[in-house]
Formats: sequence, C-alpha cells, structure tokens
Amino acid sequence: MFVVMEQGATDAQVAAVIEKLVTVGFTVHRSTGVVHTVLGCVGPKEDIIDPRNLELLEGVKEVHPVMSQYKLASRNFNPAGTRVNVRGVEIGGDAVVVVAGPCSVENEEQIERSAEQVAVAGAKGLRGGAFKPRSSPYSFQGLGEAGLKIMQKAAHRHGLFVVSEVMDHTQIAMMEQYVDLFQVGARNMQNFNLLKELAKSRTPVLLKRGISATIEELLLSSEYLLSGGNYNVILCERGIRTFESYTRNTMDISAIPVVKKLSHLPMMADPSHGTGRRDKVIPMARAAVAAGADGLLVEVHPTPDQALSDGAQSLYPDQFTELMQQLRMIAPAVGRTL
Amino acid sequence: MFVVMEQGATDAQVAAVIEKLVTVGFTVHRSTGVVHTVLGCVGPKEDIIDPRNLELLEGVKEVHPVMSQYKLASRNFNPAGTRVNVRGVEIGGDAVVVVAGPCSVENEEQIERSAEQVAVAGAKGLRGGAFKPRSSPYSFQGLGEAGLKIMQKAAHRHGLFVVSEVMDHTQIAMMEQYVDLFQVGARNMQNFNLLKELAKSRTPVLLKRGISATIEELLLSSEYLLSGGNYNVILCERGIRTFESYTRNTMDISAIPVVKKLSHLPMMADPSHGTGRRDKVIPMARAAVAAGADGLLVEVHPTPDQALSDGAQSLYPDQFTELMQQLRMIAPAVGRTL
Amino acid sequence: MFVVMEQGATDAQVAAVIEKLVTVGFTVHRSTGVVHTVLGCVGPKEDIIDPRNLELLEGVKEVHPVMSQYKLASRNFNPAGTRVNVRGVEIGGDAVVVVAGPCSVENEEQIERSAEQVAVAGAKGLRGGAFKPRSSPYSFQGLGEAGLKIMQKAAHRHGLFVVSEVMDHTQIAMMEQYVDLFQVGARNMQNFNLLKELAKSRTPVLLKRGISATIEELLLSSEYLLSGGNYNVILCERGIRTFESYTRNTMDISAIPVVKKLSHLPMMADPSHGTGRRDKVIPMARAAVAAGADGLLVEVHPTPDQALSDGAQSLYPDQFTELMQQLRMIAPAVGRTL
Amino acid sequence: MFVVMEQGATDAQVAAVIEKLVTVGFTVHRSTGVVHTVLGCVGPKEDIIDPRNLELLEGVKEVHPVMSQYKLASRNFNPAGTRVNVRGVEIGGDAVVVVAGPCSVENEEQIERSAEQVAVAGAKGLRGGAFKPRSSPYSFQGLGEAGLKIMQKAAHRHGLFVVSEVMDHTQIAMMEQYVDLFQVGARNMQNFNLLKELAKSRTPVLLKRGISATIEELLLSSEYLLSGGNYNVILCERGIRTFESYTRNTMDISAIPVVKKLSHLPMMADPSHGTGRRDKVIPMARAAVAAGADGLLVEVHPTPDQALSDGAQSLYPDQFTELMQQLRMIAPAVGRTL
Repeated sequence: MFVVMEQGATDAQVAAVIEKLVTVGFTVHRSTGVVHTVLGCVGPKEDIIDPRNLELLEGVKEVHPVMSQYKLASRNFNPAGTRVNVRGVEIGGDAVVVVAGPCSVENEEQIERSAEQVAVAGAKGLRGGAFKPRSSPYSFQGLGEAGLKIMQKAAHRHGLFVVSEVMDHTQIAMMEQYVDLFQVGARNMQNFNLLKELAKSRTPVLLKRGISATIEELLLSSEYLLSGGNYNVILCERGIRTFESYTRNTMDISAIPVVKKLSHLPMMADPSHGTGRRDKVIPMARAAVAAGADGLLVEVHPTPDQALSDGAQSLYPDQFTELMQQLRMIAPAVGRTL
Repeated sequence: MFVVMEQGATDAQVAAVIEKLVTVGFTVHRSTGVVHTVLGCVGPKEDIIDPRNLELLEGVKEVHPVMSQYKLASRNFNPAGTRVNVRGVEIGGDAVVVVAGPCSVENEEQIERSAEQVAVAGAKGLRGGAFKPRSSPYSFQGLGEAGLKIMQKAAHRHGLFVVSEVMDHTQIAMMEQYVDLFQVGARNMQNFNLLKELAKSRTPVLLKRGISATIEELLLSSEYLLSGGNYNVILCERGIRTFESYTRNTMDISAIPVVKKLSHLPMMADPSHGTGRRDKVIPMARAAVAAGADGLLVEVHPTPDQALSDGAQSLYPDQFTELMQQLRMIAPAVGRTL
Repeated sequence: MFVVMEQGATDAQVAAVIEKLVTVGFTVHRSTGVVHTVLGCVGPKEDIIDPRNLELLEGVKEVHPVMSQYKLASRNFNPAGTRVNVRGVEIGGDAVVVVAGPCSVENEEQIERSAEQVAVAGAKGLRGGAFKPRSSPYSFQGLGEAGLKIMQKAAHRHGLFVVSEVMDHTQIAMMEQYVDLFQVGARNMQNFNLLKELAKSRTPVLLKRGISATIEELLLSSEYLLSGGNYNVILCERGIRTFESYTRNTMDISAIPVVKKLSHLPMMADPSHGTGRRDKVIPMARAAVAAGADGLLVEVHPTPDQALSDGAQSLYPDQFTELMQQLRMIAPAVGRTL
Repeated sequence: MFVVMEQGATDAQVAAVIEKLVTVGFTVHRSTGVVHTVLGCVGPKEDIIDPRNLELLEGVKEVHPVMSQYKLASRNFNPAGTRVNVRGVEIGGDAVVVVAGPCSVENEEQIERSAEQVAVAGAKGLRGGAFKPRSSPYSFQGLGEAGLKIMQKAAHRHGLFVVSEVMDHTQIAMMEQYVDLFQVGARNMQNFNLLKELAKSRTPVLLKRGISATIEELLLSSEYLLSGGNYNVILCERGIRTFESYTRNTMDISAIPVVKKLSHLPMMADPSHGTGRRDKVIPMARAAVAAGADGLLVEVHPTPDQALSDGAQSLYPDQFTELMQQLRMIAPAVGRTL
C-alpha cells in the first residue's frame, strides 16, 4: 500500500500517518520527493485497514492499495489456464464451446425441438430457464422443477449438457439432479449467500457479470466460489449498463481479453442478453469469438415469435446454423476450432 | 402503444404490422404523416406483446409502450402521498425522519452508545447490520441473530425503531421478531424471490435503489411488494455507478424530486453509502433534505476509527449532532420540520 | 408526436394540451384507452415545439417524438449504402479498409518508415496527428503544418491516402492542401462551428463518436455535414466512457451493426483509442471487423517505446502485419475482402 | 510513481523495469512484500513517461502515478480559497452569488424584462446566450454580437454583470467588449485551443464541467487557463451523463464538496442544464447551495412558454423569486449569506 501525502503536508501529519500504519502492523518506508512525500507500506495482510480510513487523515492526498483482493482467480494461480469439464466437454480448451437454447423452458415439444436443432448445428450445451426473474411481477415466471426434468431428458438424448439458472441457495440441492452447469445470473453476481452455497457443490458454475459490475468485482465474486472449494468456474460477459440506450446493454467485448489476461478462468460471452435484439446477436457473437471468447451462450427458439419470454432476442434455428458456419471461419483466426 | 413505421415503409409492411397487432388483441388507429406512418394501438393489456417483437418487423422504426408497468406505486394511486408508520413514527409526513447508527452491530456496548448518542441528537430510528454482504469473502460477515437482539434492546430503550438489512428470504421470519423496518440493500433490489416473501410480511420495508437501477426499475421493484400486499414501502436513493470515481458512487439527488413526482411512496436518502467518505456525508445529507427527501439514513459510530466495517463513511457522534442542527435550519426552507 | 396523459387526467387537462398542440400547428387524434388517454399529433414539422414544454403541462405523463431529427443520415435516404471515395479508395464497399500510422507526426524518418511498413502490410491510408489536443497543457502539442507536409509526401509515395485531425475551423483551408480525409476527433464531435465549415469542403470527413455521445447524437452531428453539402462522411466508433476503468474507454462494438442499420454512411472503428492498451488493440480490431466494420483506424509506430505520444496503444510493425493476416481470415466470414 | 509487479514476477523482469525507470531519470526504491515486489520511483518530473508504457512491460501488474497533473488549480496553491472579482462582485467569498437570465438573448424587451426581474429578486449577474450550439442544425442559432450589445446595456442598467458563452477562440476579442465573465460550455471544456486563448485574456472565465468529464479532467482543463496567466477562473457543475434518462443529465451534487476540497477555485452549479426540467431546477438549486456551492447559474425567462430555446428548463420570474427566498433560509446553514 502507498500513501501519498499532499504537497505541503507537515512533518507532524506525516508522523501521525506513519504511527497509524505501524500500529496496525505495517512496515513503512518513507520517500521524500520534490513535491510529495510518499509512504510505502508492507504488511502481513493489506486489508487490515480500509484505505479510506487513511485517506481521511490530515495531509493525506491519496492511498493506493497494491494487493489484489482476488488471489485464487488470478492468472498466476494457474498460468496455463483452467479447463472446466462439463459432462465431458472441455471449456477453456482449444475448441470454442457454444451453448444454445430458449430463454425459458415452455413445454416438452419446444425443448425437444430446440435440443435437436442446436445439437445438429454444433452446440455442445442446452440452455433454458426454469425460474425466470422478471422485473415486472406480472410476467411469466417459469416452470420450475418440471421444466428441468424436461430439459435434462431432451439435452442428454441429443448429447448436450444442461445449463440453467439458479436463483437462490434453496434451489441448489434440487437443481443439482438435473443441471450440468449452474448459471448465476447478472443480478445475483453479488448474492454472496448463493455463491457460498454453490462453492460447496462440485457442479460447475457459470458466473455472469452484473450489468454494473467492474471486471475486478466479477473476479472477486468468483473468488467466493474458488475459496469455498468449487474450482469449476466459468465467467461470462453479458453487457453492462451505459448511457447508450439503443441496445438494452452495451456488450463489453474488451472484457474478454482483459479477463483472459487477469485470470486463468474460462471466459464466455452472451450476445443475446448483451444486445437484447435478434439482429444484433449475430454480429456480436462473431465479435466475441474474434476477441478470444472461450464460448458463447446464445438464445435460440424453434419459433421465436411464440416465445413466452425474450423471443425478440432469440435466433431462428436457421439463423443459428448460419452463425455457426460463420464462427467456424473466424475461430482459426484466433487459433481455435469450433 | 405506438408503432412508428420507417420513412418509405411499404403498404404491405404496414399491413403486416397491423395484422400482428390485431391478432394479439389490439385495436389499431393508423395516422399517415408527411414522413412517417404511425400506428396507435389500444388493447386490454399492453404487455401482451414484447415491444421488441414489433421493432424487429420489416419497416418498423420504433415502438413506444405507453402504459407504465408500475401501477400501485404510481403517484395517482394515492395522490396525497403515503405515510408509513414505523413503530409510531410517520415517514412521509411533515417531519423529516433521520435514522442513524453504525454500519455493523459489533457488540453490546457499541450499540448502546450508538443508540444513546443518535437519540439525543434527534434521530428516530437506529440502523445497524447483522448480516454483512461483503464483496470480499475474507471480510467480517456480521453477528447474525445475536446482533439483532442487542440492537432491539438498545433501540427500544432509547425510543428508536430498528432498521436492519434482510439478505435472503430465509431470514424474514427470524428477523421480524427484532426489526421494525426491513432494509433491502441495493444488491437485492431485483431479488424478486426476496421481494415476494417480504410482500407477505406486514413489517414495513425500506427498498434501496440498486447502483445501476433506473428510477423506473426501482418503482417496478416496489410494485412486487405492493402487489403482494405490503403497502408499507419506503424508497431510498443511495448512489448510482457512473464514470466518476472520486466518490464511491454518484449520489443522484435529483432522483428525490423525481420519485416524489412519479410515486406516492416516501423517499429517503443514504448519503453514507452514496458517497463512501465521511467528509462528503454531511454536505450530501444537507443536499438531500434541501431537495425534498422524507428522511435520511446516516452511518454514525461511537468510534469510527475502530469500526469493523465502513468506519470511513461513519460520522463521529459530534459531527452527527452538528449535522442535525444544520438540517433543522434547512427543513423549514422546504416546508418541513425535523 | 404522441402525448400520453396520466391515469386520472381530467378532461380539462386533456383539452388544454390539445389546445396547445393545435395552436402550434398540429392535427391531433385522441384515443381513450382503459388507463391512459393518448394524443397522436401530426404536423408539418415536429420540432416546432420542445417536447419538454408538453411534459410540463398538467396531467401529461410523457411525450414521444416520432420523427428522427436526422434525415439525410438516415438509412432510407440511400438504402444501398454510401461508398466514400478517398483518393481512389472506396470506403463502405466490399473491401474492409485499414488506415494505420503513428499517433503524432514526429519527424520525417519516423513517418517514412511508418508509411512503408503499413503499406507493405496492406493498409490503404496513413494516419498521423499534426495538432495534438492533450488534456495536460504540459505535453507535446504536435508539429503543425510542417508535419502535414512530411506526411503527405511519405503517404503518397507509398500509395496511401492521408488522414489527419482538424482541431479548429481556422485550420481547414491550410489542411486541405495536404489531407485526403479530415478526421474530426471525439472531443469535437459537437463542435458545430467546425462541422459547419467542414460541410463547405469537398474533402471527405471521418467523424468520430464522442466518448459520451449516443449513436443518435453521432448521426445528428453527421447531419451538420450532410445538410451543409458535404456527402463524403464516414463515421467511427472509438470507445465510450463507462464505469469500467480497466480499459481507458469501453469500445462499443455493437454500435457498428446499429449504425449500419440506421444510416447509409460507412462505419469504421478505432481500437487504439477504444482501448488505450496495445495488448487489447488486436482482439478489438478483430472484433470490429467480425461485427461488420467498413474499416479500421489503427495506431502503429516503428518504435512505440520512443513515441512522443500514445506509444502504449501503438502496435509494433510486426504486430500490425500479424493483425492484417488475421483480419484476412475473418473478413470472408462477413462477406468482405481485405 | 509506483510500479507493482505481478505475483511471481521474475528477477529479470524486475531488473528490466528498474532499468527502464532509471534510463528515463527516476530514482528507484525496491520493496519486496510477501506477495508483490513494488518499485517506488522519484523523479524530477513524473510525466516523462506514460504509465501505460510501464504497464505493458513483462511482469508488471499495475502502475500508480503519484503527482497530480494539475498544480496551479490544486487547493494547496491557495489554501484560503480564491475569490474572483467580477465587475465588483466577489465569487468564492461569504455570499452565494446567483446569476440568472434566459437561455438565449432573443430581443431587447425580453432581456430588459429579464434583467429587471432577476435583479429585483437578488441576482448579481445576467446570463444569456448570443451563440447557441444546438445538436440539430435546424434550430435557432442565436443573435450574435447584436445580442451581446442588448444584454450589456440591460445588465449594467440593473447593476448586473454579464455572463455569456464563448464558442470559439475567434470570438474572444469581440466578446470582451460586452462580457464580464466568459462562459465555456460543457462541450468546450476540452477545447484546448479556446482555453489557451482565454488564458491570455484578463476577463474571468466560468468553466463548465463536460457531461462526461471527471472532476480531475475539469481541474486539468482549468490548469490550461491558470498556467496561461488567467487566474480568474470559476468552475461549474452542470450534470453528467449516466444511464438514468429521466433527467437530461444527472447533476453530480457531490462534485461541489469534492472540488472545494481539491481546489482553491470557486465552484458554482447550474441546475437548469443539470436537470433540463423546470420542476426539478428548484430542488436541485437548493441542494447545490446546501452542499456548499459558491453560486448558481439559473435560467429564468419572462415568458418561458414563448422562449426560443430551452423554455422547458427556464423558471417563471415568480418561481425564481420564491427560490431566492428559500435559498436565503438555506445559506446560513452552511455559514453563508445570499
């Protein structure tokens, strides 16, 4: 940690800051520059003091913490990169893995058709929501466990793994019977009670970035899973909230190479939620793979116009097929297969 | 709902849109302007169709939904404004109500001193966290139920009502024994499972705006509580995330008059979380009252330097006393007392 | 324009709004829905009234303008898409056009080497700044006209067109002698005096999106150029300001397909300013092409470590060569060549 | 400057970074912590190297610059605070100074009535635009010099100083004849050519924060004025762009106490542009004064409904009078007069 004193800070002020630092356990090195005095502090654990407590001392200009708060998620914990095995499919390896399917599980026929269509086109996983968190209390709320049963049967019949969102820690035990990869939605990225319970599971977890979460906060949330013992973690960009309102969110494609540098965890992208509009899903899916994503989550529905939720961002099956062909051309440019 | 066709949209495109609208149950009125054809649609329920499904039709330029998705939270549901009674104290009435106390319940002595100090200075409620959602898994996580017991005793002894954060629907029944006003934190503003269960409680709820939530989303979340039967809802501004990083969040003071216009619910402000720095809490507390807030939530700690969490944004007791004196001068300028 | 009345608006309020609308020249159609009364207004010119003036009338809930404020920039003005000819190179056609070069013109040798290297790798244009707008008054401010002379000589010798930023309307006449494509920087996107003067030029203009400009504002600014008579306009995404601070800006890749849908103008992308970090330039350049960009602006410097400005975001020449090879693999996936 | 090496950085990597630092002129002090090696660097001028050039070296985790890039704007340059004298009125002193008037100068009668009304209510300055930068090329563009003449006559007759926006460096000489305080609009906050020329003037300058400018960037822009020799600089908050779209901008009230701490320059607030809606101007004006603003800029128009621009955010004269009365009650709470 570094404490930069204001220009003109008095010796008494500097001494008071040093005393505070020493009291909590830091070793302090003082450098006196032309303009600023700077205190470099080395301690056993940096978070023994809230940096803001130092910033509020007289004569302090600013405080720079040094240590990352995330440790296990950091790249140098596993420089070669983690490959997460989801029912035999490796995410984070040479192949870009595509997970596709409808927003919500609606009925058996819809899921069966979805599974068949996306498997034929080359997807490896089937996505579908059984519990739908909707901003309005007046909208369709999902089929629950019945939906998961339908989904598991259809997915496994077509050789696909099952991805579905867990909303609450009370759902984990039930869902583990059906799901091969838990999805934690953007709104739950900082639901620490949920993360702590998922950490005890051995089922892999796909953790989506919150719409107002920094990349560092995403990594800190993954730390809850890793430090609790679940190392099968995959991260996912799905759009952040900005002033631009033409698209529902602004998909932060640059987060993909940034996360790949900072962390060893695989990084996927969800262009369906990232844009909210079917006609933008395809270009953003291509962009994500071109930027180095380890996989994609794409909403596809046999008949988007009849979808009970998010039909507007679901691809038609033939659009998905065409997208997969384009991705097969792009993947080699980043040294990947599909 | 209005559908605006693109300049140059063909008659066939217009006809296709009209057919779609009529099929789902709308009555359509077509106006042909110099540049754009516009379709006005009146139907039994506007949300029978996702506007994005219309936007994706050929020839459609844009779609404007008309009906608010929130109904019970809307001002005209109770034009005179709602006054929420919290253990005999009215929030939303003539008096500005101040709730104060430490970030976390740490021990009996700390809470007793806090309660005494804030009561003497004029606060009506005691705040304090028993469960602490921390972004790092390595930080202090709260005292739990034991903390709530301590808090209730101290608060009621000093004539204060108790405010504490509920993190999860499984905590509601236990917490109801101790808490006079449930706080829903910013991260849980869209935890709909939690909101649905709180709606069944008769204990009042203070709902904080999420750091990336629009005012409309805040009102929609309050609708979950109201439509479920809990009418004792208070809203709270506590800062939104913007590009400016000098303050932890940017406190959106203008949300106060905006919410007061759109909704009948009381609107409080939390300048402690809104700024994250003790030296900015006081000016922002004054600003919130000057802008028309119905109350404040302020972090005060008997010894902020020893606080286990958020000491940097906690006021010293004498700073709080001084703030209350300033607020007593400002309140009459907005026709209020304190 | 549509005016939506509040639930419970009185007949007198509705009548007052209608009167106001009729007075300024609108024909009004009233629809009475279950909840809201809505007034559809058709007039000769929509902007004869500021929508906020209507919003402030008693009983008005919201106002929706219908007509785009941009007309000439709109896609339907030229549905096939505009191709801008810059010294014989077509931008907006089948080929993705890459412009490359250093941030600033520093000296003759640096520019000559830059021009040669980027031409060999396949670039069609040479970029370089002669006037450097720096946020600090204490930084290198550029070579001015001398720099433009050097640049023109080197570029044309290697068959490249010249792109350089114009800072001010007083520079236009001088710069036209050297520059084949004027660049308007992000900070000047709404410098309307500058745009009005550039509109009188016949030299093409590359208009960069401001870091806090919406897509609609970018198109409105282009309207200043088009309505003033300069139809050779190219737009460019270069990152917007968001809460995420790991990258200097957040490059809004989705703006590329959005602009291509809304407007007929070519849309380029600048991954160097969009990310501010060399190691992120390459993935974001690939992403932009995969998303459908008509061209790229990339900073390349013969020796980035010695660059007088922005060396950190400049590619090494061999990195640029490698990027061009990757782009040649991606372009066919979007039906383009390079 | 501090360079934090990654966990696991090799000795060779550390040595390479030290060499680079020493080469450009830094003295380096190395601290080896449990996890990270940190290099503290002291040099004659910190900006001899772009921190990003260090961030890109192998093994570097992050770089923290220490010195502020602004020097003359910094609080410790004049700890007592600067008072700017504008035609005999002191801004930054004990009294809160209110400047009021219409958005645009429209005609003699409108300005005469505006000046009279705001002077009677207690304003000290008259504001009004002669050149209107409009996002649409099809809107009213201002009266130019004729407008300034009208304005000067009316203002001085009523004992008010004149504030008007300068759009371009070519207008300075002409405008200096009429204007007592130059306003630099939000869009020009980083128009460095304009700032450099204004720095040569002795007329005071009111510099508005750009809608996407950080507080630090605002101070850096003021440094252009100060370092060029014009010390009569006043800063002004007028709203930043965020995801919230109910208000035109989000007025960052917290910027007021932040700037007052970081800088000695006076800080005003413009609630009219900060909110864009008349009904929000009054609460935000009160909030700004309660938060410690040195003054306000408020749009007032004799007949807002007939205003040629921004009528929707202009107060009626009697609303302004009422606001002034409220401000007189609030000012003493912050130790000020009005």
